[in-house]
Amino acid sequence: MNLVLLFPEDLTAPGRACLSGRRLRHVREVHRAEAGDELAVGLLGGLMGRGRVVRLDDESLELELLLDQEPPPKLPLTLVIALPRPKALNRVVAAATSLGAARLVLLNAWKVEKAYWSSPKMKPESLREQMLLGLEQAKDTVMPELSLARLFRPFVEGDLPTLLEGGTGFLAHPGSGGTSPKALAAPVTLAIGPEGGWIEAEVRSLLGAGLKPLDLGPRILRTETALAALVGRIF
Amino acid sequence: MNLVLLFPEDLTAPGRACLSGRRLRHVREVHRAEAGDELAVGLLGGLMGRGRVVRLDDESLELELLLDQEPPPKLPLTLVIALPRPKALNRVVAAATSLGAARLVLLNAWKVEKAYWSSPKMKPESLREQMLLGLEQAKDTVMPELSLARLFRPFVEGDLPTLLEGGTGFLAHPGSGGTSPKALAAPVTLAIGPEGGWIEAEVRSLLGAGLKPLDLGPRILRTETALAALVGRIF
Repeated sequence: MNLVLLFPEDLTAPGRACLSGRRLRHVREVHRAEAGDELAVGLLGGLMGRGRVVRLDDESLELELLLDQEPPPKLPLTLVIALPRPKALNRVVAAATSLGAARLVLLNAWKVEKAYWSSPKMKPESLREQMLLGLEQAKDTVMPELSLARLFRPFVEGDLPTLLEGGTGFLAHPGSGGTSPKALAAPVTLAIGPEGGWIEAEVRSLLGAGLKPLDLGPRILRTETALAALVGRIF
Repeated sequence: MNLVLLFPEDLTAPGRACLSGRRLRHVREVHRAEAGDELAVGLLGGLMGRGRVVRLDDESLELELLLDQEPPPKLPLTLVIALPRPKALNRVVAAATSLGAARLVLLNAWKVEKAYWSSPKMKPESLREQMLLGLEQAKDTVMPELSLARLFRPFVEGDLPTLLEGGTGFLAHPGSGGTSPKALAAPVTLAIGPEGGWIEAEVRSLLGAGLKPLDLGPRILRTETALAALVGRIF
């Protein structure tokens, strides 16, 4: 937690906040903060700055706030990720958020098991928690836009071409021999396949919708590793 | 497991291997392989290719091997990583391996808690297992060279300048405003700090040893996310 994220309901008076629960425990046990210490804080969806610890006990933490910094800009990036297995989902959502993607679409694919969609980790509050963890990690306050595309074809044929207007889109696909873009400024859409990869028909649909193939080389990377490597390369 | 990794002791005759345990379970339960199917296989430290399932039951898996491909080249990269907390260590070691780093040094730092060094996850067999998982993920057969540097100063003043000979080295340090190298071919050394970052004295020592500062931007990333983003950027 590099940033203590504040919610509107934490604000008790102008320039004052009162926290409890997980954030209180973290500030006491990891930061080992005491009265007078300053913490990096940010208001969800708003400004960031410093919070001076006014009082702290077993029950709550009171902060005096000075919020005067804009959050870091989002990357002009839409990540379209084939829904990972539940065990990997949390890491992928938190990593995509911490990297600064503006939008995240979780997409169905042939090799995505149906059961993944009904995992408890897919509940809105669970997905939201992972995005909050990503913001706290990266020192950001702005949630990415998250959407779920449970049907491959309507998304790829209907939504994807609209997403691509005025920008560039890439399909990460090992063995495609595709271009290796670097330091693009335009809005970028990046599609990353499931474990086991896209099937041929999916590759055809995605390329047909306007994505360009992109080959990271012979190594097959875990989704969260691949997306970080691609973000590092493209931006 | 994108590659079934074979060990010399698995070889029962020329071109034949017999496996059991974790790999057998994975091939049965995840790959759902049957007699006649072909699997991607590789001999640890050697060639890769195909293994045709000759026989498979509850006890063992017998493969007929055709090993005719070189493993993918390693990146000319030495990662010097401040020892992560045990919970993150496995992910970091597996990610560094899957990305293809030739060498991995786990280094002490001021903000590395002493207890991390005596974690069960630091046992040689545990570290080796994570590297094997990274190889199986990335379809590689060659282990990175791993070394542990429990003393910061002797490593940075003694070993690091030698490592840097004939190559370039970077110190990932948020806020340093350092250069943003791209697509370097020369051997690269990359130093990544602990949670909470390097302290000032460490930054001075690392720069003094010849590393150049490198700033990934205002976002603070988890070690494994940062290293993938840096590898994606540099290579």
